Amino acid sequence: MSDGTLGPEGAALSDGAQEALQLDAADPLAHLRELFVLDPGTVYLDGNSLGALPKAVEGRLADVVSREWGQLRIRSWEESGWWTMPERVGERVAPLIGAGPGQVVVSDSTSVNILKALIGAVRLARRDAPARGELLVDEATFPTDGYIAESAARLTGCTVRALAPEQVPGAVGPRTAAVLLNHVDYRTGALRDLPALTAAAHDAGALAVWDLCHSAGALPVEADAHGVDFAVGCTYKFLNGGPGAPAFLYVRSGLQERFDSPLPGWNSHADPFAMAPDYRPAAGAARGRVGTPDILSMAALEAALAVWEGVRIEDVRAKSLALTDFFLRCVAAYVPNGPAGTGVSVRSLTPAEHALRGSQIALLCDPAEQAEPVMKELIARGVVGDFRRPGVLRFGFTPLYTSFQDVERAARVLGEVIGGAR
Amino acid sequence: MSDGTLGPEGAALSDGAQEALQLDAADPLAHLRELFVLDPGTVYLDGNSLGALPKAVEGRLADVVSREWGQLRIRSWEESGWWTMPERVGERVAPLIGAGPGQVVVSDSTSVNILKALIGAVRLARRDAPARGELLVDEATFPTDGYIAESAARLTGCTVRALAPEQVPGAVGPRTAAVLLNHVDYRTGALRDLPALTAAAHDAGALAVWDLCHSAGALPVEADAHGVDFAVGCTYKFLNGGPGAPAFLYVRSGLQERFDSPLPGWNSHADPFAMAPDYRPAAGAARGRVGTPDILSMAALEAALAVWEGVRIEDVRAKSLALTDFFLRCVAAYVPNGPAGTGVSVRSLTPAEHALRGSQIALLCDPAEQAEPVMKELIARGVVGDFRRPGVLRFGFTPLYTSFQDVERAARVLGEVIGGAR
Repeated sequence: MSDGTLGPEGAALSDGAQEALQLDAADPLAHLRELFVLDPGTVYLDGNSLGALPKAVEGRLADVVSREWGQLRIRSWEESGWWTMPERVGERVAPLIGAGPGQVVVSDSTSVNILKALIGAVRLARRDAPARGELLVDEATFPTDGYIAESAARLTGCTVRALAPEQVPGAVGPRTAAVLLNHVDYRTGALRDLPALTAAAHDAGALAVWDLCHSAGALPVEADAHGVDFAVGCTYKFLNGGPGAPAFLYVRSGLQERFDSPLPGWNSHADPFAMAPDYRPAAGAARGRVGTPDILSMAALEAALAVWEGVRIEDVRAKSLALTDFFLRCVAAYVPNGPAGTGVSVRSLTPAEHALRGSQIALLCDPAEQAEPVMKELIARGVVGDFRRPGVLRFGFTPLYTSFQDVERAARVLGEVIGGAR
Repeated sequence: MSDGTLGPEGAALSDGAQEALQLDAADPLAHLRELFVLDPGTVYLDGNSLGALPKAVEGRLADVVSREWGQLRIRSWEESGWWTMPERVGERVAPLIGAGPGQVVVSDSTSVNILKALIGAVRLARRDAPARGELLVDEATFPTDGYIAESAARLTGCTVRALAPEQVPGAVGPRTAAVLLNHVDYRTGALRDLPALTAAAHDAGALAVWDLCHSAGALPVEADAHGVDFAVGCTYKFLNGGPGAPAFLYVRSGLQERFDSPLPGWNSHADPFAMAPDYRPAAGAARGRVGTPDILSMAALEAALAVWEGVRIEDVRAKSLALTDFFLRCVAAYVPNGPAGTGVSVRSLTPAEHALRGSQIALLCDPAEQAEPVMKELIARGVVGDFRRPGVLRFGFTPLYTSFQDVERAARVLGEVIGGAR
C-alpha cells in the first residue's frame, strides 16, 4: 500500500498463512461458518452487498411454498403466523441493533422506510415547532437516502442541506427538523459517531434518523441506549436475508404514539379486518406496516436470522475489527508499495482507528480506472469483492462466516493481481 | 336465495352434477388445472384473496435460492438477470392487462404503488392546471386505497372527495386532479365501467388511476385501448404469485417522460451505479422502481406467470362468467329460499348483469352475524371462501383452476350448511 493507513494494531506480518491458521483456531465464532453455504474455491468478501446463503433457508422456504402456501393456502395467514410476521421478524432484528421489544417491524424496502421515517420525523418535529423546515443529510450518503430526503422535503415543504457528518453539530439548530445519517458509509466503510451525532440533534430539538444498512449485524448500534428516534436498515447484507429481502424500520417507543406515517395502509390499521373507510393507526411497531407483507422473502429472512441464536453482537464486532486489522496488515505486506508491475497502487479509504471503522475496507486504486479490471481479475481468481466508481475496491467482512484464512488469501491474491503475477 | 338476482343466463337447474360434468368436459381451459397444486378434498374459492400454488414455483424457487443466491451470490444480479427482473416480470403482466411493452414494472406493494400513482397523477395534472386540487375516490374502495389517497392529498395540498363510481361523470371537473377507482369492488364483486369512467376523467382534464387488484388475470382490462393513465394491481390473487408477492405499476407511455415519482430510489435512477448525488430519473417503466427488488418473491411470481403461456384473457373471462352464472344457478337451486333450518337466508350482492360482474360472487347473509359461522362451517366441510364484515360470504372464481364440479359442490355444501343439514 502506498500510504500509512495501518492502525496501532498494524504490526508487521511475518508469516501470514501461519498467523491466519492461529487466528482461526482461536476464533470463538468459527463454528458459525458451518451454517452457511460457501464453496472452498471462493473467498466471499461481498457480504456487505449480498450476504451468503444460510443453510436453513432452503428447507424453510420449501416448506413455506409447498405446505403453507400450497396446502394451507389462505389459512396460513392465521395458522402459519403470516399475518404477524413483520413484527415477529422485527423482534429477531431488534436485539442486533440494541432495541427493546415492540419497536422494529420488517416491511417494504429501505428506500420506502426512509420516506416513512423522514416524513414521520418532520411531522413530529413540527408538532412543537412548526418553523422547523430543514433536513440535514450526509453529503456522501448512499444515493437513495439523498433522493428520498429531497422527496420528503418537497412533500413537506422543507429544504435539504447536504453536509459532512462531522459538520452536523455545528449546523443543527432551531430550523432543523431532522438529521439523516448513515451509520457506516457504504463507500469508505467509515463509522459515524452515532451517540454524539444523535445527542447533537436532540440538543437542537431535532430528530435523528439513522440508516443502519452497513452496520446492522456487523457492530453494536445500541439504538435504545443512544435515544435514536428512527432507524432503517436492510437485511440482505450482514443479516444475510437474501436478495432484496424486506427492510426494517425502528421507531423509538416514546414516539410511536405520535408517529404519523405517510404510508397508512390496511396493515397498519388498528383493526385491519374491519375494512373501515377511516384510518385509525395501530399501536406499536405495526404502525410502520403498509400493505400485505411479502411472505416468501420474509420467511427466508426469518430462517436466516436463526443463525444469530446465542451470538453476541459484541463478539461479532471484535472479530470484525480483527478481520479488518488483519486484512490491512496482509495488504501492507503483500501488495507492492507504490506503482507495481501493473502500474497500479492502492491506499485505504477506511479509517484506521477502530472507533471510526465499520466492517469493510475500501481501497482506492491509482489510477482509478484500473479498479474495475483489478476487481474483475480478483473475482476471476476466486476473491469476490466489488467495485464502486470511481476507483474503489470494496471488501466486506462478515464475521459469521469469514475466516482469517479467507482474509489472508484475499490480500495475497490482490498482491498478485496488482503486482502483475500470473 | 331470497331474491331474484339471477341473470338472463339463470335457467333453472335440473341435474347440477350432470351439468357440471358436461361443462367441465367442454371447458377449453380445463387442462390448466393440472398446473396447480390442488387437493381433491377441497374446493378452493378464495383465489381472489390468495391464488393457489402453481406447480412450477417450487422448483424455480429452490433454484433461485440454492444456485442463484447460494452459489452465484452477488454475480446473479447480472448473470441470473436479477437486476432487470422488475421490468421483465412486468412484461409478463402487461398483456394480461392490455398493456403494450415498456409500461409495467413489478415493485413494492399495491399500497406503495398507489402513492406513486396518485402523487404522480396530481403532479401531472397540475403542470397544465395548477388549480386542480381534488382527488375523487370510490367511497366503497378497498380501505388502503382510501387511506393512501388521504395521505397523497395531504402531501400535495389536495382534498379527497369520496363518491360512488357512477357519480364520477357528474362530479369530475376543472378542480379534479385525479380519479382513483377500483376496477372490481373487493366486497361485492361489481365491475366498474373502466372505459366510460376513464373517458369521463379525461373529458374533464383529470387523470384516471385504476386499482386492478380484483380484475388483473380475471378479465380483460385493455389499459392501453382505453387510455388508462396509471394502474396498480396485486399479483397474488388471480395472478397466483404467492402471499404478498410484489405489485405492479402501469404508467401509460405518453406520461412516462413526465412521471414525477414521490419515491425516487437508486433503482429508478438513469445510471444507478454512478451512485450520483443528484437524481436523474430512468426512462420507461423503470422509473416506477425504488429500492433493491425483492428477488425471491419476484422469482416465484415469474414462475407463476408462466401458466399464462398461450392463454387468452378473453377465454378466461368467458369461463369466469360461466362459472359465476353456474354458481348463481346452483345456489338458487340448492340454498333454501327464505329463512331455513338455521334461520339464515342469503342474497347476492354481485350484479347479475355480465357487464357489471367481476370474477367473484358475494352473498349477503341475513342475519349478518351468521356469515362468519356459516363460512367457518363451509371451510370445515372443504369449501373455502372468505368472510368480510358485515355479513358477506365471498367466493372467488379463478378460471385457470376452478372447475364447474367445484362450483356445483360449493353451492351444494352451502345449501346443506344453511339448510341445517349435518
